[in-house]
Amino acid sequence: MHILVLGAAGMMGRKLTTQLVRQAKLGERSISKLTLVDVVAPERPNFAGEVQLHAVDLSAASTAEALVESRPDLIFHLAAIVSGEAEADFEKGYRINMDATRSLFEAIRLEGVRRPYCPRVVFTSSIAVFGTPFPDVIGDEHVLTPLTSYGAQKAIGELLLADYSRRGFFDGVGVRLPTIVIRPGKPNKAASGFFSGILREPLMGQEAVLPVPDTVRHWFASPRAAVGFLLHAAVMDTASLGIRRSLNMPGITATVAEEIAALQRAAGDEAVALIRRERDPAIEQIVAGWPRAFDPERALALGFSGDTSFDEIVQIYVEDELEGARS
Amino acid sequence: MHILVLGAAGMMGRKLTTQLVRQAKLGERSISKLTLVDVVAPERPNFAGEVQLHAVDLSAASTAEALVESRPDLIFHLAAIVSGEAEADFEKGYRINMDATRSLFEAIRLEGVRRPYCPRVVFTSSIAVFGTPFPDVIGDEHVLTPLTSYGAQKAIGELLLADYSRRGFFDGVGVRLPTIVIRPGKPNKAASGFFSGILREPLMGQEAVLPVPDTVRHWFASPRAAVGFLLHAAVMDTASLGIRRSLNMPGITATVAEEIAALQRAAGDEAVALIRRERDPAIEQIVAGWPRAFDPERALALGFSGDTSFDEIVQIYVEDELEGARS
Repeated sequence: MHILVLGAAGMMGRKLTTQLVRQAKLGERSISKLTLVDVVAPERPNFAGEVQLHAVDLSAASTAEALVESRPDLIFHLAAIVSGEAEADFEKGYRINMDATRSLFEAIRLEGVRRPYCPRVVFTSSIAVFGTPFPDVIGDEHVLTPLTSYGAQKAIGELLLADYSRRGFFDGVGVRLPTIVIRPGKPNKAASGFFSGILREPLMGQEAVLPVPDTVRHWFASPRAAVGFLLHAAVMDTASLGIRRSLNMPGITATVAEEIAALQRAAGDEAVALIRRERDPAIEQIVAGWPRAFDPERALALGFSGDTSFDEIVQIYVEDELEGARS
Repeated sequence: MHILVLGAAGMMGRKLTTQLVRQAKLGERSISKLTLVDVVAPERPNFAGEVQLHAVDLSAASTAEALVESRPDLIFHLAAIVSGEAEADFEKGYRINMDATRSLFEAIRLEGVRRPYCPRVVFTSSIAVFGTPFPDVIGDEHVLTPLTSYGAQKAIGELLLADYSRRGFFDGVGVRLPTIVIRPGKPNKAASGFFSGILREPLMGQEAVLPVPDTVRHWFASPRAAVGFLLHAAVMDTASLGIRRSLNMPGITATVAEEIAALQRAAGDEAVALIRRERDPAIEQIVAGWPRAFDPERALALGFSGDTSFDEIVQIYVEDELEGARS
């Protein structure tokens, strides 16, 4: 089985690659080849099969065609400009998040015109496709009204994914990821960054800033759960999806106070004491437009499973990042 | 006031133009110039102000820029490949319904980069953005899951309209038209054609085929009501629209039996006797995927008003097409 990962150098791409290499198979099929693609060269994994690494811009002419020409059996399309950047650079956001996605889908369709071809395509979407006003718990039938260009681009990707799948050009599954916590690495300027930061920094003995009230509620998944969603989307039976190819993933709904309580249980009061409260009205306003909870009924019925508690989310970070880093 | 109408040679475009010429103003502003555009040259209206006619392909390079360069105050974007053709010709459907729409929006944005510019843009969308399963009555929060490429292209147009409006590049309103009855002209092969045909042909003493059971229910508006929606969208206060720029329009929900009863009241039993029942399983299946009724709460609150009964819909056809043609 040949697997193509687009966006392989990003956080999710690296974790997905690591897991694919570890499993060396997917469902019943062994993985013979990995093609890893990003704008910067992805790291070469320690994999027994064939590995190809490409540093290319997916939005450039003929890039998608060249990648699809080798007819991968499974394509993970994780490549995207993040929300903040898509908002700051309108043209770049549409070029990468919309045009490059369409180029990929078109390349697959045209490859199928030459010779029958229908790969599984797993597309990472986001809860950013939803916009206020929300019910307390968002159901599977809720309207898509994104509040950002990023959200609009993801929603457009979902519509294309559904239509190309309905036409039989490929077999697509869209995975609407919750906000991923605890993101490893350095603090960044994403408006959602503090959800990870107020746990990650104190776990390493460093101070973190909390810019919103403790009552703010949001929807989370660990990186490990997110990789699990992608892998399940890659092997699941898509017959029952019908036209509705994109799914709200299971997650954990938690307030900032509940995050902090989980930190306290994992690392004690001294960790909690490292959180400095410094309200930022701009971030508060952005976060007020974000979903608080979902009822991901369809995804659960289709076999997706997520984290079981916020304590588990913290534990996963400790196991995968801190203990892993020390070992 | 300079008004640009894209798709001016189509049924809706012609009726809209006629009404604009008749009013000679819109709200408080008098209309000084009409630019009418379609792939075939629109008819020259008998208008006192300036008229420009263009037969161009909106999806061709630089066409949108050239049209927008004259900085119209109001743009009606009605140009589209219809559902059946977009389904039969995948590439053409995306080129016209998606790429040309984006080209137009981009041309407006880039014109605004040169010198501040923020026209009102009225975009005709369709109830084809919705797909089964449906509730009996579809509310304003219902998810968009189109079952056709046409529906997907309209949904993508709506997402772009909302994002470009949110960014302040233009002031967009999306109008999700019900199925228009009674369409004037010859029978066509659209799956929805019989909804008009079983009224139009008998009103002219001709036989019509009914391919579905009398119990089939659908959502309708007259051409006159539809023109009214477009004109209201052109002048309404958009401040309260927020990010949700596309609206389900008011309509009449009616079964085929109710259509026939209205025909009977307008033209008697002999007209009804001209309807020949000949079931077509293919059409039945397509129509089974269509909405039956809406609760267009937002549109009503925002001042849109539609037909009051199916009898009125029949009467409008008689007045606007039959008596008009005779006079």
